[in-house]
Amino acid sequence: MSEKLNQLKEILGEVSDLNHAGSVLSWDQQVNMPPGGGEARGQQLATLGKLSHEKSTSDKVGKLLDDLKQEFAGSDSDDAALVRVAARNFDKTMRVPSEFVSEQAVVTTAAFEAWVEAKKKSDFSIFHPHLEKVFDLARKYVSFFPPSDHLYDVLLDDYEPGMKTADVQAIFDKLRPQQVKLIRNIKSAKQVKDDFLHKKYAEKKVWDFSATIASKFGYDFSRGRQDKAAHPFETSFSVNDVRITNRYEPDNPLATLFSGMHESGHAMYEQGINPAYERTPLANGVSSAVHESQSRMWENLVGRSLPFWEHFFPELKKLFPTQLDGVSAKTFYKAINKVEPTFIRVNADEATYNLHIMLRLELEIAMIEGKVAIKDLPEIWNTKMQEYLGITPPDDAHGVLQDIHWSAGLIGYFPTYALGNLVSVQLWEKINKDIRDLDSQIHDGKFDELLAWLRKNIHVHGHKYDPQDLVKNVAGSKIDPSAYVRYLTKKYSDIYGL
Amino acid sequence: MSEKLNQLKEILGEVSDLNHAGSVLSWDQQVNMPPGGGEARGQQLATLGKLSHEKSTSDKVGKLLDDLKQEFAGSDSDDAALVRVAARNFDKTMRVPSEFVSEQAVVTTAAFEAWVEAKKKSDFSIFHPHLEKVFDLARKYVSFFPPSDHLYDVLLDDYEPGMKTADVQAIFDKLRPQQVKLIRNIKSAKQVKDDFLHKKYAEKKVWDFSATIASKFGYDFSRGRQDKAAHPFETSFSVNDVRITNRYEPDNPLATLFSGMHESGHAMYEQGINPAYERTPLANGVSSAVHESQSRMWENLVGRSLPFWEHFFPELKKLFPTQLDGVSAKTFYKAINKVEPTFIRVNADEATYNLHIMLRLELEIAMIEGKVAIKDLPEIWNTKMQEYLGITPPDDAHGVLQDIHWSAGLIGYFPTYALGNLVSVQLWEKINKDIRDLDSQIHDGKFDELLAWLRKNIHVHGHKYDPQDLVKNVAGSKIDPSAYVRYLTKKYSDIYGL
Repeated sequence: MSEKLNQLKEILGEVSDLNHAGSVLSWDQQVNMPPGGGEARGQQLATLGKLSHEKSTSDKVGKLLDDLKQEFAGSDSDDAALVRVAARNFDKTMRVPSEFVSEQAVVTTAAFEAWVEAKKKSDFSIFHPHLEKVFDLARKYVSFFPPSDHLYDVLLDDYEPGMKTADVQAIFDKLRPQQVKLIRNIKSAKQVKDDFLHKKYAEKKVWDFSATIASKFGYDFSRGRQDKAAHPFETSFSVNDVRITNRYEPDNPLATLFSGMHESGHAMYEQGINPAYERTPLANGVSSAVHESQSRMWENLVGRSLPFWEHFFPELKKLFPTQLDGVSAKTFYKAINKVEPTFIRVNADEATYNLHIMLRLELEIAMIEGKVAIKDLPEIWNTKMQEYLGITPPDDAHGVLQDIHWSAGLIGYFPTYALGNLVSVQLWEKINKDIRDLDSQIHDGKFDELLAWLRKNIHVHGHKYDPQDLVKNVAGSKIDPSAYVRYLTKKYSDIYGL
Repeated sequence: MSEKLNQLKEILGEVSDLNHAGSVLSWDQQVNMPPGGGEARGQQLATLGKLSHEKSTSDKVGKLLDDLKQEFAGSDSDDAALVRVAARNFDKTMRVPSEFVSEQAVVTTAAFEAWVEAKKKSDFSIFHPHLEKVFDLARKYVSFFPPSDHLYDVLLDDYEPGMKTADVQAIFDKLRPQQVKLIRNIKSAKQVKDDFLHKKYAEKKVWDFSATIASKFGYDFSRGRQDKAAHPFETSFSVNDVRITNRYEPDNPLATLFSGMHESGHAMYEQGINPAYERTPLANGVSSAVHESQSRMWENLVGRSLPFWEHFFPELKKLFPTQLDGVSAKTFYKAINKVEPTFIRVNADEATYNLHIMLRLELEIAMIEGKVAIKDLPEIWNTKMQEYLGITPPDDAHGVLQDIHWSAGLIGYFPTYALGNLVSVQLWEKINKDIRDLDSQIHDGKFDELLAWLRKNIHVHGHKYDPQDLVKNVAGSKIDPSAYVRYLTKKYSDIYGL
């Protein structure tokens, strides 16, 4: 093997170790850390981030990459992919001055604190000046890159490499009227009953049942673990140590089950990456949308399907005989798929979820373009909620202040949630062609063939391919909403007798 | 403040961050990590260690220290102490070639695995070749340093700065006959009853009671936490995040209580260090012996005292009325202080413990000097056990293979356990002069004055003073066994009616 490639791998290996060490520290911060530990932890994370940045952007790395790009030009080997991805990361990182990175850290730290307070008091004015700064910085960030078709392209590219704003808008423009129409039809149909979902369900039983499902899906607990945290998330420290968190909300006790499926979907992706990619930039999911396609597939396409509950409902009912007295698998299935416009994105059902995303994308684009004054944001938010979902948030906590993303400087991330939904169904149609009896396998509680398909076609490749190419190669077309519309229409026609 | 001092502090701050990040990763490895995570974790820890080493030994640090040593010569300020301790660490680290450090990591990793297997099979021959290498490396390590009175001085100095082998031998020579005599007297006295300690005690109740005691001592759970691990230990990530672990052994259920007191003693030391020392080499306990004096004080001088159990025994009895039926506080106190020669050091009582240490010191010195062939170690071990404690281990697992230390390359560490016992009582005599009613405070379950004394006289100083000076200044004399002998004699005369 090329001596230069070895040198590059050694440096990238250390960068990976530093980043993974940072991930362990962040995980600990959210799962275990006593309140006193916060200040020192922030400092430790800053130092790890700084050293990782210094190592990734050294002249030596730049020179190695220049030479290796030539050496591997035209090759489709793993090593060529590694060089390509590393060069892409290097180019992006080098464009951004380290003073900017520090400034952003300071601004988002303050913005996050302001957001927490603003949300608590439901007072946008507390967050407003910080959000101005966050968007100023986002525009400044864009200015470090060569001109693109749209300012927002630069931001989007960080989460969904190669995707263009115009593409996303075209996809959403096609999708929006279909989803709005569907919701209207559902609204005038006979509503489903779901009162039994909001009874008391004992936390430990729900928690253990969630772990059982994750384990049956194929999430490997010998290379992972599940802990309690304020928010469900997945994080990986290597392909052999991929952890998930979950929570229990007394008002919505069974949400734990679906969050668990969601996070285990993310985690199985990371556990399935080619171990040969360990300690290289290929050992990650390829993009936010593809990652989300995995979590949403297990949560929605598997976990909110009738065959799934035909298998698991008897077990759930054995755990909660009183709460589910007189409820059938079919009734339960309808209840967990109830469509109801809600204020909060993370609680949204499959029929309304993407509309929450479209609203956010429109606002982000308008703000980046400077076409909307940030002070007017709450009003615009509420107007759009009325337009898309027919409801108006009672306050900013249930409106413009609900999500953490902007306070953390994450602009360009939201669209990938909806794109992930679309990709999940595009893959699902292909999988159902390849595995003809998938429904009956799920009905029997068998997921090994499904997981093997995902492993082979998606997981194992890690970051080797471009995400748009990967989707096209596997699903047969680039990201497109028609499969999703077919899926929603069929599912809800059945549930609501449309 | 000196610009150079600022520069030094910045570098040492990053070194501290890297080392603390490593501590978080190690803690996670022992408390949470799924089995699959081991390989990557080893790599991550190696990278953090390497970067910390590179940063600590840069030419820049060397030059800064040279200049600052002159600037602060003769000062007793905190900054002068920082420069002195940092220069001492720098000098030690620079003497050891990084190839040696790598070689040692390889040797001890293999030695640890061999030790685990050897102990499991109780077969010294599996460990023997590795132990040869460990001691070869220890001798090589010594060769990097200027000649000292004794080869072992160099090893000892890493754990107990400034302490000499001859001093330890003199202390142990004075102590040994006294402890041997005491044990003989106890052996011929009427034995105490302790069968009730080995009944079944429910794990959760024991665990919670242990946490209650730690909390009442003054261990601050808002700046710490207690988790389960294979071995009890204390680790700190900052003065505001100091964690302890503990375990539950069904055969010895109440051992959890004493391990908890021990580790919380270590932890209160770290929690009490001057917060201004954060991210500097002063933010540590000053030496292994002084650290151990804190843990042993809370475990033995407080936790195995009659006043302590006069207060806590009623609570314990309320939790375990059946197990402790008919047992009085005094009977319980005698039982937990039962003297009985045992094979395993960590289970040893206060009267026999130091003899286990003396045996190890003699063997370590003989091996470093090359006066003992490592193959003969099991036999010599067993002979000495018979000589000191009057018992012969049934196998090597209960003899020469019991401790992890040698497999980890820790040579020179053992004596600090015994020295810690001595220091704890030297301090205790002084504390009892300063707090006249300490016994009755303990009898009332009050520990705040005791903790405040330790905070002020020991904890707050961190690594500022030389450990031998600190002990002398606070206790009035350097490390000396007479206080310990007085303590043992009085305690066991009472318990055994000698």
